Amino acid sequence: MKSWIESANTGETDFPVQNLPYGVFSRADEAPRCAVAIGDQVLDLAALEAAGLLSVGASEPVFDRPALNAFMALGLGAWDMARIQLTNLLADGDDPALKDDADLGARALVPMADATMHLPFEVSGYTDFYSGRQHAYNVGVMFRGPENALPPNWLHIPIAYNGRASTVVVSGTDIRRPLGQMKPHGEDAPIFGPSRRLDIELEMGMVVGSPNAMGEPVTVDEADAMIFGFVLLNDWSARDIQAWEYQPLGPFQAKAFATSISPWVVTAAALAPFRTSTPEREHELFPYLRETGPMLYDIELEITMQPEGAAKATTISRTNYKNMYYSPAQQLTHHAIGGCAMNTGDLLGSGTISGPEKDQYGSLLELTWGGKEPLALEGGETRKFIENGDRLTLKGWAQGDGHRIGFGECTGTILPSPEQKDW
Amino acid sequence: MKSWIESANTGETDFPVQNLPYGVFSRADEAPRCAVAIGDQVLDLAALEAAGLLSVGASEPVFDRPALNAFMALGLGAWDMARIQLTNLLADGDDPALKDDADLGARALVPMADATMHLPFEVSGYTDFYSGRQHAYNVGVMFRGPENALPPNWLHIPIAYNGRASTVVVSGTDIRRPLGQMKPHGEDAPIFGPSRRLDIELEMGMVVGSPNAMGEPVTVDEADAMIFGFVLLNDWSARDIQAWEYQPLGPFQAKAFATSISPWVVTAAALAPFRTSTPEREHELFPYLRETGPMLYDIELEITMQPEGAAKATTISRTNYKNMYYSPAQQLTHHAIGGCAMNTGDLLGSGTISGPEKDQYGSLLELTWGGKEPLALEGGETRKFIENGDRLTLKGWAQGDGHRIGFGECTGTILPSPEQKDW
Repeated sequence: MKSWIESANTGETDFPVQNLPYGVFSRADEAPRCAVAIGDQVLDLAALEAAGLLSVGASEPVFDRPALNAFMALGLGAWDMARIQLTNLLADGDDPALKDDADLGARALVPMADATMHLPFEVSGYTDFYSGRQHAYNVGVMFRGPENALPPNWLHIPIAYNGRASTVVVSGTDIRRPLGQMKPHGEDAPIFGPSRRLDIELEMGMVVGSPNAMGEPVTVDEADAMIFGFVLLNDWSARDIQAWEYQPLGPFQAKAFATSISPWVVTAAALAPFRTSTPEREHELFPYLRETGPMLYDIELEITMQPEGAAKATTISRTNYKNMYYSPAQQLTHHAIGGCAMNTGDLLGSGTISGPEKDQYGSLLELTWGGKEPLALEGGETRKFIENGDRLTLKGWAQGDGHRIGFGECTGTILPSPEQKDW
Repeated sequence: MKSWIESANTGETDFPVQNLPYGVFSRADEAPRCAVAIGDQVLDLAALEAAGLLSVGASEPVFDRPALNAFMALGLGAWDMARIQLTNLLADGDDPALKDDADLGARALVPMADATMHLPFEVSGYTDFYSGRQHAYNVGVMFRGPENALPPNWLHIPIAYNGRASTVVVSGTDIRRPLGQMKPHGEDAPIFGPSRRLDIELEMGMVVGSPNAMGEPVTVDEADAMIFGFVLLNDWSARDIQAWEYQPLGPFQAKAFATSISPWVVTAAALAPFRTSTPEREHELFPYLRETGPMLYDIELEITMQPEGAAKATTISRTNYKNMYYSPAQQLTHHAIGGCAMNTGDLLGSGTISGPEKDQYGSLLELTWGGKEPLALEGGETRKFIENGDRLTLKGWAQGDGHRIGFGECTGTILPSPEQKDW
């Protein structure tokens, strides 16, 4: 299938007509509103809705808003209606209502270069899982040795902790290096100051569209249908703050300073052709976690790093979402099993996605093995952890036949810590 | 100071004119709106604002809403303005504008018995601290022995984890016993089913009124001024789910099913006469955590338990908020130190408040020492943990000279687990 928008047909673009990811954009002095990406254009859904070309059965307009939540809350039926209408309007040879309306096209199609992207949805809650087996093993080896690397619950439970929703930011937002307490190796007492071991975690973020009621668990199939889509997610982590604070209640300030996500939410519908099965189970799972079909996705991922002033970025890792042990539907089911209410706009991180090989790891902690094996970057610099001015970028795409379903990028540059106050 | 509303002057009421806690109420078929409690009455602030008797300098009405957030976001100046105006209207012999307006009084004063109380604010984020030394010690002894009871970071950091905001409910909401995975002592493999070791945690909840920007830490004094008020908080906990899941990332489904809070937010202003200092420091704190004055509060607390059908409730614990090692201002400062954005409506649990004596512990885990020493209830029943139909109630008040600044109650009854689906 081709689009009449030629830039969507290159095979290289992240945004062919098969994708149609949702985001929120504005131009200078305009209010943010909902959009889809198509080729090198942003399509203004508020304009389409106002023109009567897009209707999802709601009593009020849902796209003329600064967040996708109202649309997402309508559920699977409305998501399917929108996808059918948008595909018809944008595919070559189908509905000419947009293609032939030069006036509407001039208003509704905005070059991506002119659009400022915003956080695509209000983040109701943010939870971070730990469902990558290679990552859990690597971290376990570093902290506890290879015999006890995987915690005893890990093969039974998609382990997770609650993250901080208030600091989820859109790609492109600069991130300040956090201040905090840490206890360097060999020191008797903790110290206070800027983190010295600042890291990334490459993850996929699941976006919950449909809620469940408090006290009412859901099946894996029900959970699968609650998922609106996915974003790239960078769970920035201060390893030295984490090591000192995390016992016994888990990571807190080590992760609370920022989490970056890509501006485009790629829908579960667009990713349906790329479903794949989770790996063979080592222990049989409890019935509530058993999948009824392929519920994981084959998505290529990579990380690049570019120091300030460096001529080009270095690709430091290539991996794939299909490496995860638990699927997003399993994670969401577990999240609700005790009766936890999941809401429209909840963001669930997959956990760090590390492949089996050393150049497939999803964090610097693993890639440099705790700082012992620095990375060599193009241009000659080396890195154990992130330095000020470094720009870290995640990319991801599912490779189709002649097109790819891409996520764009999730990028952020590290700024120095805030000045310390006169405490 | 007395009120012309006689029920506010009894000395026994939680709600004298010195208190004026904020909540959200409705009567049958009415929209929820903001109120203060006075004696046995609920005073409708939307009615006062519409009548021109209450103005907090906002461009739009802030009290005709189903949550306190809009009012709280106005900050300390507006909170002080409201307190002065309401005190003048309700104290005997001051402003007669409400006292002498029988028509307005009939509309604005609602008997508490006729009011349904709602969650008083939208919970932006929920964080749970672990700042009670006796509690941390007790739990540590049970899990690690007395030598290693207190984690090494505990005397340096107000340890906390992110909780789940979506299941914070108002007092009176029934709570379903959670399903989950657990691994009973002596078993080789985990089991799945309803929690068998369901517990409470007696805490105070701090309610953040004024935000800080992401990347901008605050001083302890700044944090102190950001706090709008306090509620009673019951951090329901499934101990068996917790024990199996919590390593290495902390409590998750063991806590996510419900957190109950009292309907009335008692302001920091009303509690000002009851400020008290935190205990002597065993290690000097980093400068960012040092208090400039008394920032903890002297608040009496108790827990009652009443099985279904029991004639009366049994008081199972009496303790005091002043037992905490870290003050709310210290907790909030630590929460923001890495750059975490704190928002209007954030709820921060103090941690379980256990006094030094055995009948002063704030959880059944401690009161029954892990189930080994069952509690004897009035009427002859005994309890290790909570059984279905049990009603647990928290109460709290600061004792003044002839009056008390009370919190009302925070209560909840445990219902059986949801029926297991045909997984």
